[in-house]
Amino acid sequence: MKRLGILGGGQLARMMALAAAPLGVPVVALDPSREACAGQVVPLVAGGYDDRAALEEFAGRVDVATFDFENVPAGSGDWLRSHVEVHPGPGALATAQDRLSEKRLFRELGIPVPAFADIDCRDALARAVDEIGLPSILKTRRLGYDGKGQFRLRPEMGAGAAEAAWDALGAQVDRTGLILEGFVPFDFELSVVAVRSRDGDFRTWAPTRNWHVDGVLSASLAPAGLDPELEARAIGHARRLAEALDYVGVFALELFCRDGELLANEMAPRVHNSGHWTIEGAETSQFENHVRAVLGLPLGSTASLGHACMLNWLGAMPDPAPVLAQPGGHWHDYGKSAREGRKVGHATLRADSAGELASSLEAVGAALDRHDQVAPVLEKLRG
Amino acid sequence: MKRLGILGGGQLARMMALAAAPLGVPVVALDPSREACAGQVVPLVAGGYDDRAALEEFAGRVDVATFDFENVPAGSGDWLRSHVEVHPGPGALATAQDRLSEKRLFRELGIPVPAFADIDCRDALARAVDEIGLPSILKTRRLGYDGKGQFRLRPEMGAGAAEAAWDALGAQVDRTGLILEGFVPFDFELSVVAVRSRDGDFRTWAPTRNWHVDGVLSASLAPAGLDPELEARAIGHARRLAEALDYVGVFALELFCRDGELLANEMAPRVHNSGHWTIEGAETSQFENHVRAVLGLPLGSTASLGHACMLNWLGAMPDPAPVLAQPGGHWHDYGKSAREGRKVGHATLRADSAGELASSLEAVGAALDRHDQVAPVLEKLRG
Repeated sequence: MKRLGILGGGQLARMMALAAAPLGVPVVALDPSREACAGQVVPLVAGGYDDRAALEEFAGRVDVATFDFENVPAGSGDWLRSHVEVHPGPGALATAQDRLSEKRLFRELGIPVPAFADIDCRDALARAVDEIGLPSILKTRRLGYDGKGQFRLRPEMGAGAAEAAWDALGAQVDRTGLILEGFVPFDFELSVVAVRSRDGDFRTWAPTRNWHVDGVLSASLAPAGLDPELEARAIGHARRLAEALDYVGVFALELFCRDGELLANEMAPRVHNSGHWTIEGAETSQFENHVRAVLGLPLGSTASLGHACMLNWLGAMPDPAPVLAQPGGHWHDYGKSAREGRKVGHATLRADSAGELASSLEAVGAALDRHDQVAPVLEKLRG
Repeated sequence: MKRLGILGGGQLARMMALAAAPLGVPVVALDPSREACAGQVVPLVAGGYDDRAALEEFAGRVDVATFDFENVPAGSGDWLRSHVEVHPGPGALATAQDRLSEKRLFRELGIPVPAFADIDCRDALARAVDEIGLPSILKTRRLGYDGKGQFRLRPEMGAGAAEAAWDALGAQVDRTGLILEGFVPFDFELSVVAVRSRDGDFRTWAPTRNWHVDGVLSASLAPAGLDPELEARAIGHARRLAEALDYVGVFALELFCRDGELLANEMAPRVHNSGHWTIEGAETSQFENHVRAVLGLPLGSTASLGHACMLNWLGAMPDPAPVLAQPGGHWHDYGKSAREGRKVGHATLRADSAGELASSLEAVGAALDRHDQVAPVLEKLRG
């Protein structure tokens, strides 16, 4: 069996490695930190993503490379491609690394997007605010992650909004670029986690409804209970994107839904937090199918096994007992040390019916004193 | 989270370790071989089961110890118990290590067993053959594994049967003891894989129908399609056994069924090959529930997710593609080198209905040219 290398050694690499082990696939991860949590389950090459010696060692130990972190410098990706097979390809990474290219590609493919404008100077920001209006969000084009590198321009800021936003992020314009995006007062957020094989086999898991808190995923629910036409439209967008990029592996397309309209927010060219429920809630998980796809193995079924809800644990792990005591309660501790706001683990609750899932979720929310986290999911399940 | 140690580093330890990782449980295995396949996923202490230095290093790195191999010398188990928590307990191991004690316990608990006799000399064997008759099987009391250390006394051997059996195994009588068992012309074999927590919570997975070839498991099917009364009786036997031994962890009780009667064959005080299907075919796998039980965590649901069939791979791994191409096809490569008769991996096929499972199984049997392995399962599924 071919050997798999993963650039990045966080929880995504860790869960990929755990899915690769039964397939008999040896895995090595490269990460700047010796403490990276994937290192608890597979050998780790410790080194920066632009450290040529580390990349050489890594390349010597793998046949195919992939990513748990998409912001690897393009030069490193190119060097790696000249030594081993790398999936997904450079076009997908370059697109996903730059919010502006990404939005332009969405638009080209007929995937609706919120209003946006390239911001290369203070004046451009002022003009864009006039055109797009408030509320809107100024974001770095590159290197954004989980709501970092963003400034929200609120209506109550009035004429000072552009100025305040420039003060917050303007200094980064040369390094990361900036983009202004119209704020979408969405009804809900959803994501399509999809996989495409080398020979074009395209599959998606059940589109997932997501709830974010402060820009970070808090809970996911699948199936999302969508209107079938809307669901088909969301999947169609993901398919067009995958085909345009000749994508190989798993990716996620995040969408906003407002009044039955879908607006693309962003794509992640990797396994995605909103697909963690697939470990127990689908026939084949996103992690296993990503490994299968990049190694050229047949894809597994993405069919759901009942209903699943994923709860993210940020900062520190709660007591596992209340989750483990639920009939379909599953625990994922990433083996990370506690730190404010850090993704340290998640739980997935699975059940055969939405009603049973709601009961489990309510019990867990009560036992862990996490009413706010479970309330919107319960409302949807019972609504 | 407490650290878990596993005595033995084979495929059972490997699958336990993969189930422990998401729970955030650090695992270390002890095995006489540096090449033991669990060493590919967790740190390995290389040393014999009676190597005190190795046991000391192992004990220093774990809080709770368990087994992937039940024939650890009793002295080593006792020493370990004086240093760390060990589950299952010494009574369960001692019973399972000795076919005679095991059969006597079954009988005490009212669990029917085939006729058997303790054989301590040539004359005792001759008397027992007269009493039990042919066909029967002479087995070593201890250290038997997958049909090794057994001699079948066939009717066609006539009066020379006892002599031939003594010639084959008599030399071992002082080291391993011997037992003669009446051969049961069973209709089918089944196993109950069960788990019991420290506080007595007892659960079983769906009883499993098993097919052996040359004494080694070839295929398992769950659910087994049993008469409900028979199923309840089998589960009752397992419960009585677990309670009598104050058992903590997963174990398997193997049974023969003949004309609606159940006869206990043996128990394995560990996770069991006939429970491998639970990884994909049940809400919580035998591996995860064993880890939960020995660490004192709440047990997970053992409910089935549809229908599952496990096929063992002996000697060398076949091509994975035909299995992976099935909708519910799952692959388990233990990362072992090929060797005649060695258990190197397994596949599990899962489906929502028996009919779909049969179609998958038939396709896999044809693609891998394994008609003989799948035929009896297909017959049962379609019978």
